[in-house]
Amino acid sequence: MKSQMQRSFSNFFFEYETPRQVLVKNIKVAVACRIIQMGVLAYIIGWVFMYEKGYQTVDNAIGSIFTKMKGVSFTNISGKERIWDAADYVFPEQGDSSFVVMTNYISTVGQKQGKCPELPDWKDKNKCISDANCDEGKYKRTGNGHMTGKCINETSTCEIYSWCPVEDDRQIPDPPILLTAENYTLFIKNSITFRQFDVVRSNLVESVNQSYINTCLFHPKIDPLCPIFRLGDIVERSGFNFTEIARVGGAIGVLIDWDCNLDLSIRHCKPKYEFYGLYGTGKNDKEEKPSLGYNFRYAKYYVEDGVEKRTLMKVFGVRIDIIVHGRAGKFDVIPTLTAIGSGVGIFGVATVVCDLLLLYFVPKRDFYKNMKFKHTEIPEETPTLPQSHTEKDLPKE
Amino acid sequence: MKSQMQRSFSNFFFEYETPRQVLVKNIKVAVACRIIQMGVLAYIIGWVFMYEKGYQTVDNAIGSIFTKMKGVSFTNISGKERIWDAADYVFPEQGDSSFVVMTNYISTVGQKQGKCPELPDWKDKNKCISDANCDEGKYKRTGNGHMTGKCINETSTCEIYSWCPVEDDRQIPDPPILLTAENYTLFIKNSITFRQFDVVRSNLVESVNQSYINTCLFHPKIDPLCPIFRLGDIVERSGFNFTEIARVGGAIGVLIDWDCNLDLSIRHCKPKYEFYGLYGTGKNDKEEKPSLGYNFRYAKYYVEDGVEKRTLMKVFGVRIDIIVHGRAGKFDVIPTLTAIGSGVGIFGVATVVCDLLLLYFVPKRDFYKNMKFKHTEIPEETPTLPQSHTEKDLPKE
Amino acid sequence: MKSQMQRSFSNFFFEYETPRQVLVKNIKVAVACRIIQMGVLAYIIGWVFMYEKGYQTVDNAIGSIFTKMKGVSFTNISGKERIWDAADYVFPEQGDSSFVVMTNYISTVGQKQGKCPELPDWKDKNKCISDANCDEGKYKRTGNGHMTGKCINETSTCEIYSWCPVEDDRQIPDPPILLTAENYTLFIKNSITFRQFDVVRSNLVESVNQSYINTCLFHPKIDPLCPIFRLGDIVERSGFNFTEIARVGGAIGVLIDWDCNLDLSIRHCKPKYEFYGLYGTGKNDKEEKPSLGYNFRYAKYYVEDGVEKRTLMKVFGVRIDIIVHGRAGKFDVIPTLTAIGSGVGIFGVATVVCDLLLLYFVPKRDFYKNMKFKHTEIPEETPTLPQSHTEKDLPKE
Repeated sequence: MKSQMQRSFSNFFFEYETPRQVLVKNIKVAVACRIIQMGVLAYIIGWVFMYEKGYQTVDNAIGSIFTKMKGVSFTNISGKERIWDAADYVFPEQGDSSFVVMTNYISTVGQKQGKCPELPDWKDKNKCISDANCDEGKYKRTGNGHMTGKCINETSTCEIYSWCPVEDDRQIPDPPILLTAENYTLFIKNSITFRQFDVVRSNLVESVNQSYINTCLFHPKIDPLCPIFRLGDIVERSGFNFTEIARVGGAIGVLIDWDCNLDLSIRHCKPKYEFYGLYGTGKNDKEEKPSLGYNFRYAKYYVEDGVEKRTLMKVFGVRIDIIVHGRAGKFDVIPTLTAIGSGVGIFGVATVVCDLLLLYFVPKRDFYKNMKFKHTEIPEETPTLPQSHTEKDLPKE
Repeated sequence: MKSQMQRSFSNFFFEYETPRQVLVKNIKVAVACRIIQMGVLAYIIGWVFMYEKGYQTVDNAIGSIFTKMKGVSFTNISGKERIWDAADYVFPEQGDSSFVVMTNYISTVGQKQGKCPELPDWKDKNKCISDANCDEGKYKRTGNGHMTGKCINETSTCEIYSWCPVEDDRQIPDPPILLTAENYTLFIKNSITFRQFDVVRSNLVESVNQSYINTCLFHPKIDPLCPIFRLGDIVERSGFNFTEIARVGGAIGVLIDWDCNLDLSIRHCKPKYEFYGLYGTGKNDKEEKPSLGYNFRYAKYYVEDGVEKRTLMKVFGVRIDIIVHGRAGKFDVIPTLTAIGSGVGIFGVATVVCDLLLLYFVPKRDFYKNMKFKHTEIPEETPTLPQSHTEKDLPKE
Repeated sequence: MKSQMQRSFSNFFFEYETPRQVLVKNIKVAVACRIIQMGVLAYIIGWVFMYEKGYQTVDNAIGSIFTKMKGVSFTNISGKERIWDAADYVFPEQGDSSFVVMTNYISTVGQKQGKCPELPDWKDKNKCISDANCDEGKYKRTGNGHMTGKCINETSTCEIYSWCPVEDDRQIPDPPILLTAENYTLFIKNSITFRQFDVVRSNLVESVNQSYINTCLFHPKIDPLCPIFRLGDIVERSGFNFTEIARVGGAIGVLIDWDCNLDLSIRHCKPKYEFYGLYGTGKNDKEEKPSLGYNFRYAKYYVEDGVEKRTLMKVFGVRIDIIVHGRAGKFDVIPTLTAIGSGVGIFGVATVVCDLLLLYFVPKRDFYKNMKFKHTEIPEETPTLPQSHTEKDLPKE
């Protein structure tokens, strides 16, 4: 028993099996087959390895962003001069990756809690004829407060309990109040981490030093690495018209795209900045969509003569969403072997195709079939085979 | 020399090798083998290609979100009427993807810097008997300020230097003050970009036009694409009870799930909205967990009679985190060929299994072994082989 | 016709083809070949399956974060005592995943709109000699307002229209005003969702209960799961010096890393906390970089005697970006079969290598070639073959 196991073990180790093959001297089939095989080889080497870098393992970046707006605007509204700086026009103020630059606003000064008539709607939805139209305690979806049940004659709208006077946002200031926002500059600091490769990288790459930052301005061709952007440029590069977006607001995505090959020096790992409009103005989205524009309301509260009041601001502005998309590849043995293994598999498909050609589309196919296959039993009839002695020899071989 | 290279080159091109095979006429093995092969084929075609769409390359979305709350609440606290609108109850105000809707609060009006007794703790942790219990200049982790070193008799707590009076948050208002927050509506605008496919898409898809938005309300069955959500519905669909969450606060995730097949028309690429509770109320997490509830403090500063004062608000509310999860697939030649190559590899496994059946589990296995294998040398002994002439013929074949 | 189709169908089902193979009894080749094959097998089983868990399908987490700072600071600036609590020093206040803890500030109290001289620059950039240096209505990139066209003698700078007086940020307070921020504590709640596996998990895992949270403090070795962090510890573990970062500000990434094997119990799925400096202080980024430090400005507005005023704060602080990186693997049949298929492919490569050895590097290679290959036609000449009768026998076999 033991000796048999030993023998089969030694057989396994000292014998090696390799498939027997027929060398088919048929030029047409051979050339077709070699071309197919070379195509597969070219695909595996050229496409999978060179172009798609199938020998690399890939990691996605985790990124952090800090932003800072600079610039001042000067307005002169009916003789009232005013200067606006970053602390006045950026929301939120702490330098987030998503923020709004105010370019236009409707301000309602001195609102206080009380009763006042609802705003007449542009489609007369809020219109009332008698008190019966104004259900006490109810609230309309487009309304500003709870109805008290009275219909006010002067405005033909219901009286409501609300912050009074009600904000009148039926007319958006045109031209936008802070049109000079075009010249504000945005400074972006971006740090990315590729966890898998233990690489940390900042958008202030080697060639971006302090003296360069002090003077540069981003330009896709001339200064593609300068981290300082003019707001007007961002807006135009994302396909908007500044005067339009400044009036009603809009949202812009700034994409920082890192595509790094870590098999090369880390110095070649550089960001690329792209700009595009958000919410339905993309290139695959030609038709006009609802809800263009961007606005929000905020309130500054204060106490005057013991009464709580607020200044309500309806802010229109450019919302900027900075998005980091990072991807790094580095040589690794597993994807390499997986790609090779898969390539060998596709090679197998090439062989199958060649065999189909040989066995079904060649005049002498029966001869080749005979060479390739050996039967274990004598078939009932073999009228199509020219070499009928093959079968007879079979059990003997 | 050259002619030999030419010959081997021409041999390579004009000759083609194909493996020789035995056709085994054994019904049991053949049927078993075909069934295995068909299973593999069915798996590759049905599962990998049809179900998992293995012929597609996949990209993840980068998304941007803008939100807007609407609705007003009316409160009447001990005769003091007050109306609350979005500028009052949303934090932060600029329409971020993560925000808090205030539903309850404890407000401490008119705090100013000074000395006052610490709040008696619910577990008597802050209790003091004599000044010796109150280390001057120290600060307790659960305390509100620096101890001055005195123990106040009236409250049996240490005197502290702090914003005075100290906030008393031992009792949370019940029922919650802004219980009508249930009827607020949330409007979500979401834009996604699939970088690899150059596709930009908004959640305001083709069927969602302005007149639809003006009237619709999200419902998973009836209006699954309406981007307007009732706060009460969001809370209930994520498994909370509105009255409870309104009192102590809670966090809810709103997932916008895009699963797009870009081989079809872009019109079929639609968002799906899902709601779930965050921080330990998930379905795999049945046990009660610490730190349920959601609250934060903020202060409104003002100057009164030359003294800086603040109104401290402890805000309880529903925190909503909107998360975009996008995934798009599109036909690509590399994953297709990788899947085929891998499938051919698995086919090879099927062949190995068939051979094992043939060579070890079939009565006439030695006959088949003999057909399949050719030995390069005469073995020492061959007692089990019925056709002993095979070995003798070998060098001759 | 029909009977022939039936026959070829029955042939397909009842016949099974298996490749014919030569068993080569050459110890050197056999051993070399087995070693290569075993290496491939060991790689597939050991590396792909065990180490890289190639049998698992992988999903990335979507995470939500809530943060809460605790702690108070006491300052005494020229006799003016003041206490600072979380509502005073955290921006924004609502517990976002990215926030700033103020550690130092320059406050400019009582700014109002008007005309005042520009701040003398540290590099004399703002210097003017006569009115000709101050273009009316222009704005300098580093300036604070619009120039009125006058040059002020006292400061040798242009007069500007701005918020006056202009903030003087040439000297940053040293030591930082809120140095005791070191002892603040940060509480992090993190919830993650693995969509594909329908798993929700919180960083308050089973062993973290309320009584533990009340007393614990994060330590990588002793308390690696405690969700409460001392600000000073975070700063030091990310490679900064607290006094330096507190003075000029800085940005820190807190990474919550989940690497879960869902084939095991969910209890083993635990977070790991890591800390690193952002924006150019990473380990692969040794050189000093521009724009270290972190600061932003915000304004508190108020009305005094009918005039709008503001207190401008230039805030220096520690910005903390909490980032979730989650990855879970679970057994799945597709990646398993893909890995096997790919492995079988690599096995094929091993066979090719063995054949090369056999056919080109072994003394008796011609004998083996002869055994392995059968020619379909008689070649022109065969001087190198020892068994010349093989070719003659070929058509007969």
